[in-house]
This record gives sequence, structure tokens and C-alpha cells, in this order.
Amino acid sequence: MVLLDGKTLSRQILSDLKNQIALLPVKPSLDIILVGNDPSSLKYVSLKQKRAKEVGIGGQIHHLPETASPKDIFTLVNQLNQDPKVTALMVQLPLPPHLDTARILNLIDPKKDADGLTATNLGLLFQNSPQAVASATALGVVKLLNHYQVPLLGKKAVIINRSSHIGLPLSALLLAHDCTVVICHSQTQNLDKICQTADILITAVGKPNFITPEFIRPQTIVVDVAGDVDFKNVAPLTSFITPTLGGVGPMTVASLLSNTYQLITAG
Amino acid sequence: MVLLDGKTLSRQILSDLKNQIALLPVKPSLDIILVGNDPSSLKYVSLKQKRAKEVGIGGQIHHLPETASPKDIFTLVNQLNQDPKVTALMVQLPLPPHLDTARILNLIDPKKDADGLTATNLGLLFQNSPQAVASATALGVVKLLNHYQVPLLGKKAVIINRSSHIGLPLSALLLAHDCTVVICHSQTQNLDKICQTADILITAVGKPNFITPEFIRPQTIVVDVAGDVDFKNVAPLTSFITPTLGGVGPMTVASLLSNTYQLITAG
Repeated sequence: MVLLDGKTLSRQILSDLKNQIALLPVKPSLDIILVGNDPSSLKYVSLKQKRAKEVGIGGQIHHLPETASPKDIFTLVNQLNQDPKVTALMVQLPLPPHLDTARILNLIDPKKDADGLTATNLGLLFQNSPQAVASATALGVVKLLNHYQVPLLGKKAVIINRSSHIGLPLSALLLAHDCTVVICHSQTQNLDKICQTADILITAVGKPNFITPEFIRPQTIVVDVAGDVDFKNVAPLTSFITPTLGGVGPMTVASLLSNTYQLITAG
Repeated sequence: MVLLDGKTLSRQILSDLKNQIALLPVKPSLDIILVGNDPSSLKYVSLKQKRAKEVGIGGQIHHLPETASPKDIFTLVNQLNQDPKVTALMVQLPLPPHLDTARILNLIDPKKDADGLTATNLGLLFQNSPQAVASATALGVVKLLNHYQVPLLGKKAVIINRSSHIGLPLSALLLAHDCTVVICHSQTQNLDKICQTADILITAVGKPNFITPEFIRPQTIVVDVAGDVDFKNVAPLTSFITPTLGGVGPMTVASLLSNTYQLITAG
């Protein structure tokens, strides 16, 4: 069993990125919109800004109160879309429940969409377009698999997640790598049996110890996006597996910043 | 075994549509861009225009020569996008090989995209947005399944096609109906075994007699989008199946015109 070490790989990516950004005539910037005071969101946002600074990406955090209205956010997004000094922006998720997440994300100019979460970028990704900005999480997973030279062509990838920021963009990227893709979710019947047919199992459910050894056939490759895997008992069965910490998380941040770089160089 | 009779259903849909359009203050129009002289394309385009007229949809065919340059097409699409008299438009596929199909389709204003083939509409469809315009073919398939009350929740749908006009929008629609979705293609290994696990098999390969009884377990529901099924030998095994003619084809035309209606009423 080999650990898919996202922490080490993300450091390499960030180090390369720093060198590439140093050569740019204009410094990229990533503005982050944060609504409310969810403790995890506060932590992620400050981590993203810290890593951004380390590689030479500027930008501000726009911290709105929990009670921000849709109009407040629309106004801010439009202002950042139009500001030439802002080369990329993102909205930290989750948003408070009174806000329509998809609608807000779709306000972002696709050419500034560092997290790759607009409908246009999702559609471009499924079209396998070179202009597509991939969801940072999905891109992080695929970069990790590619780095460890996990064979993808013709392999069966089972994804437990159908969200437009994780499961769907992952499907698009893995199809582009010639995987057969199975998209599972809360309504899937016989999930354990389907997982047993996977060459690659990617899980983003958000339930600790949801994936037990019964889901795994020997030598499966397991990527745990949301802390779902009973690591101690599952890991010995796998050929490759992400660690509980230092797997997909740091890859997401690295991909967000790679996207920020891509956006300024494509423009 | 029950035949999924798209011919009869499409007539019902078109008849309802005619009544709805008669009530509109403004007549919708669907302009069609046709490049070259592919005999099938000529036939489809004239059929689409005929059905459009029957239900009260106007619009012109813009027939460009095989040698039309990208710029010729860009200019025409932009002109139609801006013309308020044109409420919807589509580009007949396939385009000649010197043209970049995705790039041309993505020039269409998503709010006039009757065939639902722009990246933005594909992404909105995956986001399950009420604004999404679904690919006409994919929508036709799902309307046909819904009409025959084929159960979809939790069922495993195996789709043999990963194109952004058939397999991918079908995946989006079937996920929205709570199917587990398996996307297969030319690089899929053990395709026959995967098909044997399907509750619903949707095939769009373009190879006659590609789907033989070995692919089918008893009571599977089979939808043949591209003439792939050995009908005589497969049909007796199925619970529902599309006929070789009069299955998905007429549903595609009906959905194109439903989309045209949706676009004018949403605007």
C-alpha cells in the first residue's frame, strides 16, 4: 500500500508556482468572499490567503456578515468582476442557507473563476475545452493520481458524490483521462457492491467510517475527499490510498492557486 | 416487452405545444444554420423546419457552403444572437471537419440555445438549474422514459456515449432523477459485463448490431439512440425498448421545439 501524499506534492506544486509567478510582469491576485463566521471557513480562508502570499499572489478577503443579502453579494461580485486589479476571485463555501449558492457562483466572471465552480466552467470541463477552469478539489484529486502514475485509461472510477463542485467535475476530468465513470449518491442501491467493482474509489460523503472493508476489493485505489474512510481497516486492502490528513485538502489549495495562475496567463 | 413509442408521444407533445404557442403574444422563431450538403443533415433540417411550422414556430434556414470559414459562421451566429426577431437558433451537426464544433456552439447565446449544446447550458443542467436548456436528444430520451413511467430513482443507468450532446447531458438529467449513472465509451473495459448490471441501458455508439443479447440481462430497459441494437434478438429480453425507427429520433425534434417554446416564455 502506497500513501497518496498530497502534502508533499502540494508543496512541490506551490514551489514551482512561486518560480513561475516571479517571472510574470503582473502579479496575480485572488480575492476571497467570506460570508459569516463558520469556524472551518475562517480557517480555510486564512490558509488560502497565507499560501497565496507565499507564492506571490495578492488579493483581499471580503468578510461579509452572516446576514448579508443576496443583493450585497451580487454587488460585491460584480464590482470584483469589473476591477482589473482583481485577476481571480472565489466565494468560500458553504454559504449561509438563505443564499442561493449556484446563483451566486454563476455571477462570477468565468475568466476570474479560480475555484472553477461556475456553470460555464463546468460545461467547458465536460466539453474537454482547453479554456475550462476545473474545480480546485477535482483537479487536486486528478493531479494526485497522475503524480503517482495511477493508470486511468479504461479503469473503472466509482465516485460517491454528485455535487457540481466535487463529483461532477471529477467525472469530467476522469472521462477525459478515459476512465469509465460511475456516479453514486444517497439514492444509489447496493452501493457496497458497486464499490467492490471499482478500480478507483473516490468518496466525498462527509460521514466518518462510512467506507469499511466490505466496500473494497483488494488492490483498489482509494481517494478520501471528505474523511469517509475507516483508514485503519481499509488501508491494508488498497494499492494506493490518501491519508486521513494531508491527502486531498492541500491539493485543493494548490489547485486553487494553479488556477489563479492559469487565469492570468490565459488572459 | 413494451415498445417505447417516441413517434406517438412526440405527436402528443407537438400537439400540446401548438396549443400553447397559439396563446403566446409573440410567435417564437427557430433559425437553423446548416453548413455543407450532408444528405442526412439536409433531411433533418427540413424535417425540423416542417415540424416547427406545424406548431407555429417561424424562422429561417441559413445554408452556408461546405467551405464556410469560421469567421463566416461567427459573424452569422453573432448577428442571430443580436436579432430580437430570432428567439432561438441552432447549428445542425455534424459540421465539416475544418470547423471547431464546440467553439462554434459556444458562440450561441445560451438564452437562444434551442439544442441546449452550449457549455453554459450543459453546466447549468449539471447544476440542476431551472434556467438550463437541456440537450434536445437527452431531453427526448428522459421524456420518453417518464411518459412510460419507467422507475428511475436509485436505478442503475448505463450510458454508452460520453459526448457533450448525448451522453453527458443524459447523465445530468438521469442524476437529477436519482439514477446511479455509469458513463461508458470506446476505452471502457468489459463493456458487456457492465451492461449486464444495468437497469436501464442507453446506447449511442453508431454501430448497427453492436448490442447483442450477451449485453442484456432479462427485464433491462433499452434505449437505442444511434441504431446500435440487434433489435430482433435483444427485444424479447427487455421490459421496455425503443423501436429501431420512431424511438428517440422524433423525441429529439419535439424536444428541440419544446426548448424553443421554453426559451421565449422564460425570457
